[in-house]
Amino acid sequence: MTTGRMEAFSDGVLAIIITIMVLELRLPDGSTFASLRTVWPSLLAYVLSFVYIAIYWVNHHHLLKTVDHVTGGILWANLDLLFWLSLLPFVTRWMSVEHFALVPVVTYGIVLGLAGVAYSILQIVIIRSQGPDSALRGAIGRDVKGTLSVVLFVVGAALAFVETWIALACYAVVAIMWLVPDRRLEPVIGGHGTGPAG
Amino acid sequence: MTTGRMEAFSDGVLAIIITIMVLELRLPDGSTFASLRTVWPSLLAYVLSFVYIAIYWVNHHHLLKTVDHVTGGILWANLDLLFWLSLLPFVTRWMSVEHFALVPVVTYGIVLGLAGVAYSILQIVIIRSQGPDSALRGAIGRDVKGTLSVVLFVVGAALAFVETWIALACYAVVAIMWLVPDRRLEPVIGGHGTGPAG
Amino acid sequence: MTTGRMEAFSDGVLAIIITIMVLELRLPDGSTFASLRTVWPSLLAYVLSFVYIAIYWVNHHHLLKTVDHVTGGILWANLDLLFWLSLLPFVTRWMSVEHFALVPVVTYGIVLGLAGVAYSILQIVIIRSQGPDSALRGAIGRDVKGTLSVVLFVVGAALAFVETWIALACYAVVAIMWLVPDRRLEPVIGGHGTGPAG
Amino acid sequence: MTTGRMEAFSDGVLAIIITIMVLELRLPDGSTFASLRTVWPSLLAYVLSFVYIAIYWVNHHHLLKTVDHVTGGILWANLDLLFWLSLLPFVTRWMSVEHFALVPVVTYGIVLGLAGVAYSILQIVIIRSQGPDSALRGAIGRDVKGTLSVVLFVVGAALAFVETWIALACYAVVAIMWLVPDRRLEPVIGGHGTGPAG
Repeated sequence: MTTGRMEAFSDGVLAIIITIMVLELRLPDGSTFASLRTVWPSLLAYVLSFVYIAIYWVNHHHLLKTVDHVTGGILWANLDLLFWLSLLPFVTRWMSVEHFALVPVVTYGIVLGLAGVAYSILQIVIIRSQGPDSALRGAIGRDVKGTLSVVLFVVGAALAFVETWIALACYAVVAIMWLVPDRRLEPVIGGHGTGPAG
Repeated sequence: MTTGRMEAFSDGVLAIIITIMVLELRLPDGSTFASLRTVWPSLLAYVLSFVYIAIYWVNHHHLLKTVDHVTGGILWANLDLLFWLSLLPFVTRWMSVEHFALVPVVTYGIVLGLAGVAYSILQIVIIRSQGPDSALRGAIGRDVKGTLSVVLFVVGAALAFVETWIALACYAVVAIMWLVPDRRLEPVIGGHGTGPAG
Repeated sequence: MTTGRMEAFSDGVLAIIITIMVLELRLPDGSTFASLRTVWPSLLAYVLSFVYIAIYWVNHHHLLKTVDHVTGGILWANLDLLFWLSLLPFVTRWMSVEHFALVPVVTYGIVLGLAGVAYSILQIVIIRSQGPDSALRGAIGRDVKGTLSVVLFVVGAALAFVETWIALACYAVVAIMWLVPDRRLEPVIGGHGTGPAG
Repeated sequence: MTTGRMEAFSDGVLAIIITIMVLELRLPDGSTFASLRTVWPSLLAYVLSFVYIAIYWVNHHHLLKTVDHVTGGILWANLDLLFWLSLLPFVTRWMSVEHFALVPVVTYGIVLGLAGVAYSILQIVIIRSQGPDSALRGAIGRDVKGTLSVVLFVVGAALAFVETWIALACYAVVAIMWLVPDRRLEPVIGGHGTGPAG
């Protein structure tokens, strides 16, 4: 069983998630540049979520490069990841509509965190399926970046109770952390792990 | 005629079905944790439908592994299955909006049952196309699990008239039944049949 | 230039068209079996459109089997076909909302007819690209079925001015005509042409 | 790392973008031919956006034919292009709802222009990854067409302040410019560049 159809299905789901969020963008109330300013928060939320799905897609892409043989466990761990990511448009919309109120911002962080955990589980299931010589285990190493991501989601969601924009800053930092050092993208898989919560 | 494009189209349709349901999730009326509780039923309905589509995708995946040669009959039996599954977002939404009222819950079970029957027809059409040495026929065997699924859908829909939550429990049991014993996923196709109503 | 990506893109667009129509199904006003009856017309319209997209997908599938080399003209003729089919969810919704009123029913037939013409143009562009020994030209033959489809769309749309249900019957007859004789699906391409207006 | 999955994901996103715009078409207020006239502007906007996405898909298709080896930079430049194109349904809807008012028309041009710039960046990233013997650099040449497209978007958006229909005419001219001379589509890549702002 090769990864072909699992990749195709994941690509489909991620492509839809990343695109339908734009369906949920509310139109400005009017046709002036000032009216555009009222949709700024929801555009910001859209950009953040778009970047997250993009990061997951890129990492998922690299992750599956290490997989030769797909097991039932891998299929289901992958579906679990897709489930949490599928909730992202929902919490993005909620966060936008409620103008980044406390609970939606916390929920957004929780969903991102659970997606990170699902990604982590997917990595573990793949490593187990590969046995002692797992190529993925070698590539992930101590996975500092993945662990730091989870810590930042937890800390961010907690700090939202102090000030919601601190939480959003934490979420943004995780995204930037995964965007900036592109070295990890070039070789088969770099030494930084392969996902936000890997 | 290989299965490539039939798989690609089915993956596309199933990826869309599984994802658009999140578009139909109503936002909480407010931004408190309490308001999240009001969307709990619709989240539950979403999870159940997500799991069902995921199960169908996994089984469809395995089913087509046994197919070398696609006939017109297989294409249309597959489209019939996709049709019934495409109604799942509709009945999921109805069930959520009407707070799991009797008729929507019964209708949900009927649609799931008809999808199961469509899956069964697809299996039969494939077996016929494979002739006496059908690999699929050997793999399905007596298909206890498939028959039990249909029975549970029928019994569940009937018991909804007594208490709707019994029906939902029956539907959930079918899902769990297909999720738990992952042995069937590992070899080409296990001895339990390959789909909810197979 | 092979057909791979053109098939993938077409599969994507057709999968989305066939699935988003269900997003536009209005929920019944209530939770009784009687309330389901009020959505019967829109379900019927959905079924008809689903079947049409399915027929196009199956025929498109077979059509591209005859193509080795994709030209720019083929790409654009294909996009033209996808454009007209993309309007099907729009006219389906209009027809449903207006309870099969005259003008929406006529418009529905016109869109189907224009999709048929687009399919015909796609066939012609492919035949031209294949030169004098075109495999497709041989397969299509006189294309009685394709011509009859166009006639039925025109006659149906015209008869809508007498009685809209006659138009719908005509549209349904075209669909049934393409569904029933599956012989054309089995060999590379049968002798009946390969599309509703081929 | 081959282009396979990057193509599949892009095809998915573009297929969804091109199709969901039809979801956002408002129904005519009534069921007469006259009522159809009221949706004419939004149909026009839909056609324009459909043609743009189609042009991008065709050019993207050709562009990736020149790529053997995908780098992280190419993946992200591609995601940047998809991001700007994903905003097209949003600005199309805004332009339609506001009946082609000044600011939405200007914004539409800006989004198209930024998509053009993103396409240009993608080309540059690919050329860099190919080194001194870049096949793409040779194919693009002076890229007159790409530069002219950007100029027309800027001029069009500016002239919208004089008269919005001049802006729309400029946008349409860019589309027609890319549609008409199909010579560039036939060979690997013609001498005119491969995208609206290439």
